[in-house]
Amino acid sequence: MSLTTTHAGATLPLALTMGDPCGIGPELIAMLFRPGTGVSMANCLVVGDVAVMRRAVTLTGQSLPVAELDDPSGLWQVPPGCLPVLPPQGLPAGLIDCSLGQVHAQAGAAAAACVAQAAAWALQGQVAGLVTAPLNKEAMALGGVRFPGHTELLQACAGQGRAVPPPVRMMLANEALKVVLVTVHLSLRQALDAVTFDAVLETVRIAHRAATAWGQPAPRIAVAGLNPHAGEAGAFGDEEIHIIAPAVQAARAEGIDARGPYAPDTVFMRARNSADHPGEFDVVVAMTHDHGLIPVKYLGLDEGVNITLGLPFVRTSPDHGTAFDLAGSGRANPASLQAALRWARRLLTP
Amino acid sequence: MSLTTTHAGATLPLALTMGDPCGIGPELIAMLFRPGTGVSMANCLVVGDVAVMRRAVTLTGQSLPVAELDDPSGLWQVPPGCLPVLPPQGLPAGLIDCSLGQVHAQAGAAAAACVAQAAAWALQGQVAGLVTAPLNKEAMALGGVRFPGHTELLQACAGQGRAVPPPVRMMLANEALKVVLVTVHLSLRQALDAVTFDAVLETVRIAHRAATAWGQPAPRIAVAGLNPHAGEAGAFGDEEIHIIAPAVQAARAEGIDARGPYAPDTVFMRARNSADHPGEFDVVVAMTHDHGLIPVKYLGLDEGVNITLGLPFVRTSPDHGTAFDLAGSGRANPASLQAALRWARRLLTP
Repeated sequence: MSLTTTHAGATLPLALTMGDPCGIGPELIAMLFRPGTGVSMANCLVVGDVAVMRRAVTLTGQSLPVAELDDPSGLWQVPPGCLPVLPPQGLPAGLIDCSLGQVHAQAGAAAAACVAQAAAWALQGQVAGLVTAPLNKEAMALGGVRFPGHTELLQACAGQGRAVPPPVRMMLANEALKVVLVTVHLSLRQALDAVTFDAVLETVRIAHRAATAWGQPAPRIAVAGLNPHAGEAGAFGDEEIHIIAPAVQAARAEGIDARGPYAPDTVFMRARNSADHPGEFDVVVAMTHDHGLIPVKYLGLDEGVNITLGLPFVRTSPDHGTAFDLAGSGRANPASLQAALRWARRLLTP
Repeated sequence: MSLTTTHAGATLPLALTMGDPCGIGPELIAMLFRPGTGVSMANCLVVGDVAVMRRAVTLTGQSLPVAELDDPSGLWQVPPGCLPVLPPQGLPAGLIDCSLGQVHAQAGAAAAACVAQAAAWALQGQVAGLVTAPLNKEAMALGGVRFPGHTELLQACAGQGRAVPPPVRMMLANEALKVVLVTVHLSLRQALDAVTFDAVLETVRIAHRAATAWGQPAPRIAVAGLNPHAGEAGAFGDEEIHIIAPAVQAARAEGIDARGPYAPDTVFMRARNSADHPGEFDVVVAMTHDHGLIPVKYLGLDEGVNITLGLPFVRTSPDHGTAFDLAGSGRANPASLQAALRWARRLLTP
């Protein structure tokens, strides 16, 4: 078991947020707590609704008792073999009445409230980090949440009391490939304009700090180009010449082992790390959502983890959505959530 | 051995063009003709320079005699255990003096002349199709060739005598994935403007015809989106709504089993076909060079084949370049060229 300690040396719990109560999140979390999986859950608590988590235990064929906590430190009083659930203040009642597999405003608002509360505890040093089960964008919007997803919500939480919210980046990782994205949820046309010197340089810095944090001593960071063949010396676009190469140089001047820009179509192949193919790089910085996510997802989603870099706390999540079609069936696969938990521990105790 | 027959029933040779004489092309071809590889080369001839091909035989440690042909049909008089080479008319002398691994104007011009001649024979019904070894863009430009690569050169050859050259598309294929590209060698910014209703529909049609030609009865064609999450209902770009979805509908109205647009980051994963993962689609139509090529190349280039669709003849090539750094070493890997030969035969005799 990995434990994380505060500056004073006390152990901190890891918070698993339940996600949308009508999706597969609660079930996946219940599966993780199933005795005998070989994964220790000893320092984990669930931020969520007690009734919803109790139902999830039943749906996954278990008889695990649910222990309701009052605050994060209550975890240490929970006897083994229980599912510790800590409801955030003001969680609406009656969530259990929202039908599984459907969009409910109330469910979207509750899911976001769990994330916001867990972030607040992380910022106050009461939990070590967050592993978040999936949210439903539509339910959140209906529930009056003004953020499209976790990343933006957490960035806002971390930015409270600051003039400027911290720059955050999305990293997608599996055992073979780690990709950090310069741009995310923009049209491709808008993404082209968002690929600036500052955005690229900041992404490289964030990737470098993260890789150092997970124990890579001098991370080799490949920076992908934007255009075919990385622009072929300006023949197919000049962003590599005017934006990306200068950002790579600036990062190198700061002592970061950044390289590139490399042709997008081969850089991920070169970075792929497997038993028979040692990767040439530790992390790839990709300019667009799909340049980066296509290779991470190509071999399947089971091991994929989404990690928000740049926050003042650790946050990981599985690389899939609420899967409303599977909710309640007990057939969803907890592999990606399990991988997210492993990654959180890796980032907390490299 | 696959043989291709003319309408009159006569067998036609398959032309292997030597590529840039200073690159790895001649060596790779010589390796394919090595006796005992298990691949029949009985209907193959090399369009190239006799002295260059003789050197390539030596560089790959063989003693295969070279038989110089006068025209394609001369192949049938060549005794087994020879390398049949047919030089195009007007090939410059002294190509053998161009140093291996270097850019030479003369070499670039000669390589292009071999391709143009092979295309002419294909159009005249004297060869069944082309398998092309790599060209060097820089050498061709120095040699006065006004086309950046095979695709454009072959399109121009096929367009002679026509008001409009035939629409051609690049397909990249390996055993697991087949991708046809709407846009290729443009900056990403220009590619956005080149993704039109007509371009997408024509690509789907070409992909459908090709898949039918290689023996897929009712090919399932997935059309990838352009934007993250295929635009998420317009939130991240509207090309899916205004361009791609209508093109998919138009293709369906023509009886083509086209589907989509799908999120770029998961459509290639869904189409990936392997022993433990049956692909959901037979071909994916991708909007940009790198959306399509990143997944095809992710697991390595060995099996990758580049196929030009839309020409009035078959043309395949390996998915790598001239590799000047390896030229002359005899260490280049012929797997991709071999796969290109297999694909040419597959397309000729489904």
